[in-house]
Amino acid sequence: MTEDLNNIALLAALDDGQRQTLSRHVKHRKLERGETLFAAGSPAEAFFWLRTGAIKLFMLSRHGEEKVMNIVQPGTTFAEGVAFMDPPVYPVTAQALEASEVLAIDTATFRALLQDSPPTCLALLAQQTGRIQSLLTEIEAQTLESAHHRLIAYLLALAGPSDDLQLPASKAVVAARLAIKPETLSRLLTELQRRGLIEMHERKLRLLDVRGLRRLAAAPTLHP
Amino acid sequence: MTEDLNNIALLAALDDGQRQTLSRHVKHRKLERGETLFAAGSPAEAFFWLRTGAIKLFMLSRHGEEKVMNIVQPGTTFAEGVAFMDPPVYPVTAQALEASEVLAIDTATFRALLQDSPPTCLALLAQQTGRIQSLLTEIEAQTLESAHHRLIAYLLALAGPSDDLQLPASKAVVAARLAIKPETLSRLLTELQRRGLIEMHERKLRLLDVRGLRRLAAAPTLHP
Repeated sequence: MTEDLNNIALLAALDDGQRQTLSRHVKHRKLERGETLFAAGSPAEAFFWLRTGAIKLFMLSRHGEEKVMNIVQPGTTFAEGVAFMDPPVYPVTAQALEASEVLAIDTATFRALLQDSPPTCLALLAQQTGRIQSLLTEIEAQTLESAHHRLIAYLLALAGPSDDLQLPASKAVVAARLAIKPETLSRLLTELQRRGLIEMHERKLRLLDVRGLRRLAAAPTLHP
Repeated sequence: MTEDLNNIALLAALDDGQRQTLSRHVKHRKLERGETLFAAGSPAEAFFWLRTGAIKLFMLSRHGEEKVMNIVQPGTTFAEGVAFMDPPVYPVTAQALEASEVLAIDTATFRALLQDSPPTCLALLAQQTGRIQSLLTEIEAQTLESAHHRLIAYLLALAGPSDDLQLPASKAVVAARLAIKPETLSRLLTELQRRGLIEMHERKLRLLDVRGLRRLAAAPTLHP
């Protein structure tokens, strides 16, 4: 079990002694398919790490409709937010979608470790700050990727059966229409020219390789 | 200046007294276009909040090529990671792209505040945990959005001039080709049917509204 604790990102900042202490307050639980692990609104004594299986996190609307917030994958922590709440209460309900195994990590013990050890607290903050930075970078890359897909679809739709088309408005307006920054639009158009897929003079465009453009628009990633 | 501090997300967990203390160690700086704020590898005494202007964060490769990591927008913090490093060193170089104004927040003072106040540390951890959750949710939504765009482009490319097409392989293989989970592919196809854009029987598909599909593929967001 202590081995498993080494794999939990949220615990990476703990030193060996702290991990030992915590391991005495970690419980191993097996869930059957359909079993509820915790219910929204109930007091939270633990957060969890999923070893095997799949866990659905959901809320019920006023009308009793289920809103699925997340399907937890093995190897990840969930409900870790409760470790920093006072008093801790589960914000969602967790139910096993299949037979699952979890580690339940005692919230009070984890909090006490952090409260007694500012260096651990700072290390955890450092780790989370890094995580936030890398998520922001990922979002930016995805945004660019999806802008590329939209631009190609837009050009193909404008051209229709012809290979020639004219942008119906200034680049600034077209960029706004596609929810892309003007400088990003220019960059994307330049790249399509560089790849020999289009030719462009002012607002006039010629599609040089419609099949290539379609292939690119249907490709999961635009960067080879 | 204390007003500005209230707008800095990373400082939201501080109480009024702590914010007062910190404000005595905050410096206001004006930068000219092209001026370097800090260089990669130099000791870090402060992290920053950009009030106006634009700041480029970059690294130099071994061959002297510039790799831009980020263009900082006003209203955001940057180099905050150094607040949790010991000893703190800037990992990148920051240069003003235009005339800019920043607040420099003393790293040592900020660390001392956190070290003396476990509750502040826990509050900050809670805030960051929430931020990470919402970024993960955003990434998931974007991934789905971009899968939708790719699927439509793929169907239009398969159909060519005709309105009828047949998936060239099982749904599982098509899903893999588009880098979508099989259950997501099924969900997306069901939604296109629900919107009256396609009709589907086994692997045979009929495009009922090609213009509608093209419009959807070029739309910045697929969810009205």
